[in-house]
Amino acid sequence: MRAVALAKRPKGALTADCFTLVEAPAAAPQEGEVRIRGRYLSLDPYMRGAIDEHPLHGAPLPIGAVMPGRVVGEVTDSAHPDFKPGDLVRGDVGWRAAATVKGGALVKIPAGDLPLSWHTGVFGGPGLTAWIGYAVVGDPKPGETVVVSSAAGGVGMVAGQLGRARGCHVIGIAGGAAKCALAQSRFGFDEVIDYKAAPDLAAAVKAAAPRGVDFYFDNVGERTLDAVLANLNVRGRVALCGHIAAYNSLGSPDVGKRHYRDANSFRWRLQGFSVRDNADLWPRATAELMALAQAGKLVQHETVVDGLAGAGQGLADLIAGRVTGKAVVKLA
Amino acid sequence: MRAVALAKRPKGALTADCFTLVEAPAAAPQEGEVRIRGRYLSLDPYMRGAIDEHPLHGAPLPIGAVMPGRVVGEVTDSAHPDFKPGDLVRGDVGWRAAATVKGGALVKIPAGDLPLSWHTGVFGGPGLTAWIGYAVVGDPKPGETVVVSSAAGGVGMVAGQLGRARGCHVIGIAGGAAKCALAQSRFGFDEVIDYKAAPDLAAAVKAAAPRGVDFYFDNVGERTLDAVLANLNVRGRVALCGHIAAYNSLGSPDVGKRHYRDANSFRWRLQGFSVRDNADLWPRATAELMALAQAGKLVQHETVVDGLAGAGQGLADLIAGRVTGKAVVKLA
Repeated sequence: MRAVALAKRPKGALTADCFTLVEAPAAAPQEGEVRIRGRYLSLDPYMRGAIDEHPLHGAPLPIGAVMPGRVVGEVTDSAHPDFKPGDLVRGDVGWRAAATVKGGALVKIPAGDLPLSWHTGVFGGPGLTAWIGYAVVGDPKPGETVVVSSAAGGVGMVAGQLGRARGCHVIGIAGGAAKCALAQSRFGFDEVIDYKAAPDLAAAVKAAAPRGVDFYFDNVGERTLDAVLANLNVRGRVALCGHIAAYNSLGSPDVGKRHYRDANSFRWRLQGFSVRDNADLWPRATAELMALAQAGKLVQHETVVDGLAGAGQGLADLIAGRVTGKAVVKLA
Repeated sequence: MRAVALAKRPKGALTADCFTLVEAPAAAPQEGEVRIRGRYLSLDPYMRGAIDEHPLHGAPLPIGAVMPGRVVGEVTDSAHPDFKPGDLVRGDVGWRAAATVKGGALVKIPAGDLPLSWHTGVFGGPGLTAWIGYAVVGDPKPGETVVVSSAAGGVGMVAGQLGRARGCHVIGIAGGAAKCALAQSRFGFDEVIDYKAAPDLAAAVKAAAPRGVDFYFDNVGERTLDAVLANLNVRGRVALCGHIAAYNSLGSPDVGKRHYRDANSFRWRLQGFSVRDNADLWPRATAELMALAQAGKLVQHETVVDGLAGAGQGLADLIAGRVTGKAVVKLA
């Protein structure tokens, strides 16, 4: 009955000693409650923001509190009419090996022959994020050119495969030869640019997208955003999904102003979005993502940490860019 | 049978001596053609771009060529089955007192008791521009807060009245007490900020919009855009319609980068758009704009130049910000 709590607030780069294992018993369920045993915990970039003191994220998690996070698991006891032992569920129960929560906080996972851990990724928050960025912002047509940054990451992995499934020309951007090779071989990117090996990123995007870019799924912001905007076509769309590069204060400070003018002249659409704002789309998104996976057109690559004791190091690796695909902690 | 041609290309500020009057006879119409006598010529900011060497606008108008522009006029001779003498029409025929053009280049204006000159403004390009910015980008709901820059200009005038008609709280931004008074008294803005008298524009927007801004109809860009973005709510929208301030190289170069990150976090939508891209919406837009005017909820204020000889000075005044409402040249 273990859990992971925040031991201290990180200063700069996140390190494993910011976390500590604690005992957190899961009581017998009361009326309307369900007890679950966790099978997989999802590690996601938003967790860095939740423990930081960045004003965007409101009050930070208190020291000593259990870390927030989504778990995929199995019902062991139920005092809720909709759940019975053995049911597979997912819910935001935190970094816990077991938990007792209200039934309304859980969503049942349909039985199937795809790996259960995929419900942390391609069928979880990252999959919904990618799907909603396509549906609400980009909506690229067959033959259009799509660029995805963090192409080997949890969201980028799905964004690339969705582009391929739509018949787009899909270009990835990732850091390092290993990530680029993975993105091209497993996620169906037509081409992947290694930004660490590209002295002029805008020129590299231009070479990969000679007809220009129609939709940019942006997971990083900053100088990568600048390089893609320099190649964005008339009526181009940008899904502003993540801004990881800003955490390191990279970037070219004078690019923004020019691009606002270009957005006007070239009729661009730049849009932030969230999964939470689009809850009405979740059922359709999940159904489509699962159908794609059943058809063999959507796969999850994952980096697995074995056990809660390694979860803190796993999150530190994720934020530092040392993880490929979906970061998952195996609990059982 | 006079017209106005480009005499020389402007260097910096536009001046009247860049234009010259020329004779330009309108020949008798051949099969499919129509001869019209102009009644009003519309002066619009895009004309500055058409004669400039800015690379966004492609090849500039050659020296000696007749200036482009939209005219509202009356058919005098017709060799086209759809038109007869006396019909009222509008078309992009240039700065000409009379012209012979293909019938397909003209649109008939329905007879009515509203002033004919309004077809250069609230029922013309500026009206369509404002309507499409609302329909395609902003779509503000009753009670939401809308900000419009260039509030006393040809587009801003309509944008303010559309906001009022939708039951929004509408805040204008304009330069100088006279424009502010006009916007508030004639265009129904709830409040108008004089940016020339506001030492801290972001603070002035905050004071006028204590609940934040939901939709910004941006006609100017640069530091005004920055000040409004500083007050934009979660899920805020920005219609990027014009960037007049950039012509004077004002602005704060480091604001753009920060705002991209905010757009991500706060789920903003920043979108350029054009009337031309949305031709399918023109009939609905025109019908709604005319119905609003018939109901007394949409008026045109105009600054009228008498005769083609003053058209060049009129355009120079428009670009320099010396015009209130729609700039129109009376031809007949």
